[in-house]
Amino acid sequence: MRQLKAEIICTGSELLNGKLNLYVPLFHERLSALGFGITREQCPGDGAADIAACMSDALKRADLVLVCGGLGPTFDDQTRQAAARALHRRLTYSKTCEKLLSAAYSLRVLPPNLADQCLLVGGAKAIENRNGSAFGEILREGRKIMILLPGPRSEWEPMFESFLASEIRKAFPGARRVDSVKFKIAGLGEPQAEALLRPVIKKYPEASFTILAGPYTVEFIASAPSGTGLLTKVRAACVRLLKEKLYGFGEDTLASAVGKAFSAAGRTISGAESCTGGLVSELLTDVPGSSLYFLGAAVTYSNFAKMAILGVRGSTIKKYGAVSPQCAAEMARGAAGRFGSDYGFAVTGIAGPDGGTPGKPVGLVHFAVAGRGKTRLFERRFRHSRRQIRACAANFILDELRKVIE
Amino acid sequence: MRQLKAEIICTGSELLNGKLNLYVPLFHERLSALGFGITREQCPGDGAADIAACMSDALKRADLVLVCGGLGPTFDDQTRQAAARALHRRLTYSKTCEKLLSAAYSLRVLPPNLADQCLLVGGAKAIENRNGSAFGEILREGRKIMILLPGPRSEWEPMFESFLASEIRKAFPGARRVDSVKFKIAGLGEPQAEALLRPVIKKYPEASFTILAGPYTVEFIASAPSGTGLLTKVRAACVRLLKEKLYGFGEDTLASAVGKAFSAAGRTISGAESCTGGLVSELLTDVPGSSLYFLGAAVTYSNFAKMAILGVRGSTIKKYGAVSPQCAAEMARGAAGRFGSDYGFAVTGIAGPDGGTPGKPVGLVHFAVAGRGKTRLFERRFRHSRRQIRACAANFILDELRKVIE
Repeated sequence: MRQLKAEIICTGSELLNGKLNLYVPLFHERLSALGFGITREQCPGDGAADIAACMSDALKRADLVLVCGGLGPTFDDQTRQAAARALHRRLTYSKTCEKLLSAAYSLRVLPPNLADQCLLVGGAKAIENRNGSAFGEILREGRKIMILLPGPRSEWEPMFESFLASEIRKAFPGARRVDSVKFKIAGLGEPQAEALLRPVIKKYPEASFTILAGPYTVEFIASAPSGTGLLTKVRAACVRLLKEKLYGFGEDTLASAVGKAFSAAGRTISGAESCTGGLVSELLTDVPGSSLYFLGAAVTYSNFAKMAILGVRGSTIKKYGAVSPQCAAEMARGAAGRFGSDYGFAVTGIAGPDGGTPGKPVGLVHFAVAGRGKTRLFERRFRHSRRQIRACAANFILDELRKVIE
Repeated sequence: MRQLKAEIICTGSELLNGKLNLYVPLFHERLSALGFGITREQCPGDGAADIAACMSDALKRADLVLVCGGLGPTFDDQTRQAAARALHRRLTYSKTCEKLLSAAYSLRVLPPNLADQCLLVGGAKAIENRNGSAFGEILREGRKIMILLPGPRSEWEPMFESFLASEIRKAFPGARRVDSVKFKIAGLGEPQAEALLRPVIKKYPEASFTILAGPYTVEFIASAPSGTGLLTKVRAACVRLLKEKLYGFGEDTLASAVGKAFSAAGRTISGAESCTGGLVSELLTDVPGSSLYFLGAAVTYSNFAKMAILGVRGSTIKKYGAVSPQCAAEMARGAAGRFGSDYGFAVTGIAGPDGGTPGKPVGLVHFAVAGRGKTRLFERRFRHSRRQIRACAANFILDELRKVIE
C-alpha cells in the first residue's frame, strides 16, 4: 500500500502580498489522517491561466489536488474558471444549487452575483456551504480527484467534517491511514515540552511527531499507522509524562477545559480583568453554553472602575499600586461578590509597550483566584509584544481556573 | 517599464508537515520595495529532483527566483544540488569560502560537513553568512537571477540588508517600483464594496486591486507603479466613493479608529457586553494607550449581573427580555453611569448555536450607544457561526462608536 500524494493549491494574490498562509498546516492535519502526504504546495496568485496551469501539473503528479480560495462572487475569484480550463470542461448552471441558495437567503430570485455561485464545473459534485454562498466542488478526473474549497476557514472546515472526509475515504479505499492525537499542553515552552516528551519520541521511531508553540501553551501531535495499536501506546506514554500539564486533546481549548471542570462541579465563576482587557471573558464565552457557569466579568481599566465596580479599596491601590497581589486579591473577591459567583478571578498587569518601571516592568502580571474561602495568588513575567503578553496572561489564568476545581 | 516578477521557492518538508510558512510575507515586503511583484510561491518538499523542476519552471516565468532553505550540512539539504541540476552546472569547491569558514570557526582543517559548505554552484557569487555556516549564492542565468538563501531568518535577513538588496538593485536598474494603499472599510460586504468601487477598478486598468472580506469589514488594496501619480488618483477616487464607510488605511483597525476619534475629542467610553462576551473590550484594549479613553466594561452574561452591575431594571428584562432595545439602552446608560464615562455602549444578542426562538432568532443583536443626552439604538441580524456572529457584532458597535464622535 503506497502513501497517497496530495498537492495543495492556494489561490488569492493576498497570499503573495503579505498575508500569512494558514491553510497548509490545517490541510496537513486533515489529509494525513486520511492517509495522504502533502508533496507540494503552490500559490499562483489570482490569474485563471496560472491557476489552471498549476492544477494541470498537480493532477499529473498527485492523487488528490486540493484548491482553496477564489470561489467568491467578485472579479478576482477565478478558481472555477481555472478548473474548467484545466479539465477541459464547461461551467454549467446548477438548479439544485439555485434552490439551496434561494432557501438560504430567503430570496425568490437570486441577484446576479449569487446566481453566479450556481455555476459549477461540468460533472462537479457540489458541497453545501452553511457559512457562505460559495459551494465546494468535487471533481473526478480518472482515478484522481480535485476538490475546490472556499477560502474562509469557517466555510471549508465544516465541509471537511461533515462530508468531504468520508467522500475522500470512499474514493481512496486503499489509503494507508494514519491516526493522530493532538495533546494540548499548558505551562511548558516548546523546548521544555520536547525535553519532557523525548523518551516517547525515541522509543517509537515508527511514529511521527510535531510540536507547535502557542502563548503559554504547546500542541504536540503524534501520528502512527492505523490499526497497529502503536498510537494507543504513544498516547498512554505521553499522558503519563505530561501529568497535569495536559489540559485536553484535539479541539479542546483552555476555556473549554474550564467549562468542563465548572459544569461538572456545578460551580459558577466571574472575573475582573485589567491588562487582558476582556480577553479572558472573550475566550470563556467563545465556548457555547458558557452562560451556565460564567456569570460575567468587569473589565476595569481605570482605578476608579476597580473601586466603583469591584469595591477595591482606594488605600490598597495607593499603597501597593493597581498591579499588585493585594489589588488582584481584592479584584477577584470583588468580582465573586458583585456577580454572586462561587469563584472570582482577577488579572492585573502591564501589557506595554508603555507603563513599565524598573520595579514593575512590562510583562509583569498579578493573578488571583478567590473562592471557597481561599484566595490563590500568582505572579508571572511574560515577554515580547503587548498581544503576546495579553495572550499568555489570559491562558495562564484559564489554566489555573481549570486546576482550581478538583 | 514592466513590473518585474519574482517567484519564491520554499524548501523543507516541515513546511508541508504542519509548520507555518513565514517566509512569503517577509520576502514580499523586501521584494516589493525593490520593484518586484511575487507572482508565485512553491513548496516542493525536500527532494532534489522536485526542487530542480520547480527552479527550472520558475526561471522560465520570473525575472528573479528566490530559493530558501536546504543549504545546511545534513542529508535532507538538497538545494545546492537541485540548483546545479536546474542550471546544468557543476558544484565547485571554493577556496575563498574555505578561508572564510576556517577563520569563522578558528579551524585549520575543516571537518567534512563544513567542507561541504564550500561547494558552490558553478559561477555562483557567494554571500557571507555571519550567523551560520551556509553561504548564500547569487546565480545569473542570462538576464535572470536565482538566489539561494539559508532557511533561518537570523541568517538570511542580514544578507538581505547588507548586500543582497543592493545587488538586486544593480542587476535590475529598470525595476518599476510599485506602491500600494490598503483601504479599511466597514459596513459593506465584499460584493457591495466591489460594486461601489467598480468605477475605480474600471477607470484605472494599469492599477491592480485586491479585496478581502472580514467580519462586517472589507479590505481593499490598490497597487500602482511608483512615481506616476496613479496611486494618488486611485486613492482620491476611492476615498470619494467610500465616504464614511472608510474607517482607515493600512494597519488601522476599527478599535484604533475609535481610539483616534475619542482621543481627539477628549471623550471617554465604557461598555456593557452580553453576547460579545468581552470581545469589544478586548479589541478596544488591544490598542496601546487605550486606557486614556476606555474606562472599562461589564461583561454581563447573566440577567442578575445586568441588574446588579449595570442597574438594568428587572421589569425591563421581564417585559422585553434581555435581548431587546430597551435592555440595550439601560445597559449602555448603566455602563456610562457606573464607569463615569462620557459615552456608554451595549451589545446584547443571541450568538447561538442555542437560545434562538422564532421571534428572536440566533444572530439577532441589539445595540445601544448612550452619551451627551442621547441614546442611539441599532438592531442587526448576523449570520453563520457563533464566532462569526460575535465578530460581526463587535465590529458593528466599534464602527458606530467611531462615527458617534463628530
